[in-house]
Amino acid sequence: MAAEKGELALIDWIRRNQTLRSSRVSIGLGDDLAGLRLDGQELLFGCDQVLDTVHFKLSECGARAAGRKALARNLSDVAAMAAEPLAALASVALPNDMPAEEARQIVRGMWDLAEQFNFPVIGGDVGSWGGALVINVSILARAAGVGPVLRSGAKPGDVIMVTGELGGAILGKHLSFVPLVKEARVLAEAVKVQAMIDVSDGLAVDLRHITAESGCGARIIAERIPISEAAKELARKCGDTALAHSLSDGEDYELLFTVAAADADRAAKVLRSAGTQASRIGEITEAKVVLVGKDGREQELPAGGYEHFTGPNRPG
Amino acid sequence: MAAEKGELALIDWIRRNQTLRSSRVSIGLGDDLAGLRLDGQELLFGCDQVLDTVHFKLSECGARAAGRKALARNLSDVAAMAAEPLAALASVALPNDMPAEEARQIVRGMWDLAEQFNFPVIGGDVGSWGGALVINVSILARAAGVGPVLRSGAKPGDVIMVTGELGGAILGKHLSFVPLVKEARVLAEAVKVQAMIDVSDGLAVDLRHITAESGCGARIIAERIPISEAAKELARKCGDTALAHSLSDGEDYELLFTVAAADADRAAKVLRSAGTQASRIGEITEAKVVLVGKDGREQELPAGGYEHFTGPNRPG
Repeated sequence: MAAEKGELALIDWIRRNQTLRSSRVSIGLGDDLAGLRLDGQELLFGCDQVLDTVHFKLSECGARAAGRKALARNLSDVAAMAAEPLAALASVALPNDMPAEEARQIVRGMWDLAEQFNFPVIGGDVGSWGGALVINVSILARAAGVGPVLRSGAKPGDVIMVTGELGGAILGKHLSFVPLVKEARVLAEAVKVQAMIDVSDGLAVDLRHITAESGCGARIIAERIPISEAAKELARKCGDTALAHSLSDGEDYELLFTVAAADADRAAKVLRSAGTQASRIGEITEAKVVLVGKDGREQELPAGGYEHFTGPNRPG
Repeated sequence: MAAEKGELALIDWIRRNQTLRSSRVSIGLGDDLAGLRLDGQELLFGCDQVLDTVHFKLSECGARAAGRKALARNLSDVAAMAAEPLAALASVALPNDMPAEEARQIVRGMWDLAEQFNFPVIGGDVGSWGGALVINVSILARAAGVGPVLRSGAKPGDVIMVTGELGGAILGKHLSFVPLVKEARVLAEAVKVQAMIDVSDGLAVDLRHITAESGCGARIIAERIPISEAAKELARKCGDTALAHSLSDGEDYELLFTVAAADADRAAKVLRSAGTQASRIGEITEAKVVLVGKDGREQELPAGGYEHFTGPNRPG
């Protein structure tokens, strides 16, 4: 698998080889959530798993944080489409020796977030085994008036924007982030968001998801990328530059999106009023994904970033 | 956890402690799928995971059978409500050393079944880790004219019926079973099915799920329980009786249901025409779950059965 660039290779293979088509499917593989049209209504449906040692370290963060993160990642996918969460399900594979109270903490971690976002966890599956903790959450959402915003709508000339600051999430944000569900809806209600994704695999990889799905390129200005303190801290410790961390680290769960140039100011303004800064980091072009360095020179943006299978920056 | 009877104890705790209520939830915890009401439409939503060494042995059955089983279990939950599958999602945690072709076989195993039942696998999540293979499938379904049939509708006087034959699924049926989706719909279209469940944990445990949710008892006639050849074979090998296997083994994925006495003949007839035998194994009573032995003596039906956490009969 590693030789085939891991998980993305399998997903590509699935997209090329699946034969079953359904007229009900409005959004297929390749976006943050899948879409299904039912009696005139569009439902969004997605799932995401967290694995002990890959997405969290149970011995360090505890069960409640693991449960919270499992749900938070799914909510971030909902945010990426500017959708509204309706309900979630959770499957949990518990280590055989996990005490009952610790298992309950996983559930409490999910409830913490479900209450904050006011939707129920309505079912699931519990199993136990000799392996490490696995939590899978599935989420049902709907557009409810705006969107759903896809990855595929970016157009040359669009301004590329990103919320918050990027890099170094491994130092803590990958567990503590609050999914930007409300911010995404405020944004999509105010302006036409052409394309959006949550930054889970890192800016470089996730921007390429947008350009690949939209059939376009991008030009990013290094000096405009909002670099987090955590990225700078990691840079001091590890030797990489803070810019490299902001480009390649994953799990910031910020929103990366494009809007028509005329809408960029308004987008920033409504996000600011919702409590989140948004930076204009570049523009959508016809082809190629390039980074403009501080010296003004352009280079092709390194495609490499945080990918669970091969990435060096996994939390575990 | 084992001291607390495993997984069921956690689920009971969740049911007692969850505080978030939603008027959208039409079917909460405690049934085969959860139900959500949206603009006059009822959606059913469930998930089920399979774990290497617990639900299958990858080294023996291969990846395609594992993928197929992951989806088949979810379809059996759809059958248990007499519902119609709409779409599925799959999360897969791949062992780091799994060859790419083997990972694809997992997907092919799901596609085999999805094509047979004519619904798409529309998305999912792929991760890799140092642990064993985990496959979680989530499924979206709808009643589409009949049902959904719940566990909670059984009434004293109802006839208890079960499809097929029970026991010894570990010898092969737990991988090869065909979910009884079509049979359940034929049944529910022909008669009012009062309560239904798929036999995943074993007859004794699953019957108690019906009686607990319905607030009633049951009286089962040992001689009427359809005992499979596999149960007899296991009995010869292991010393337990074939009856004990038919009561306690899990993963037959047959349908256990109740109908008013006047409907029992018709229920058996329509199932026969759909290619499945159905046996009348007893009746719903006011209280207690009892088994009438060959000697005519009644005994409380052993509650113990196949439960993944504590059960001795797990496939692994």
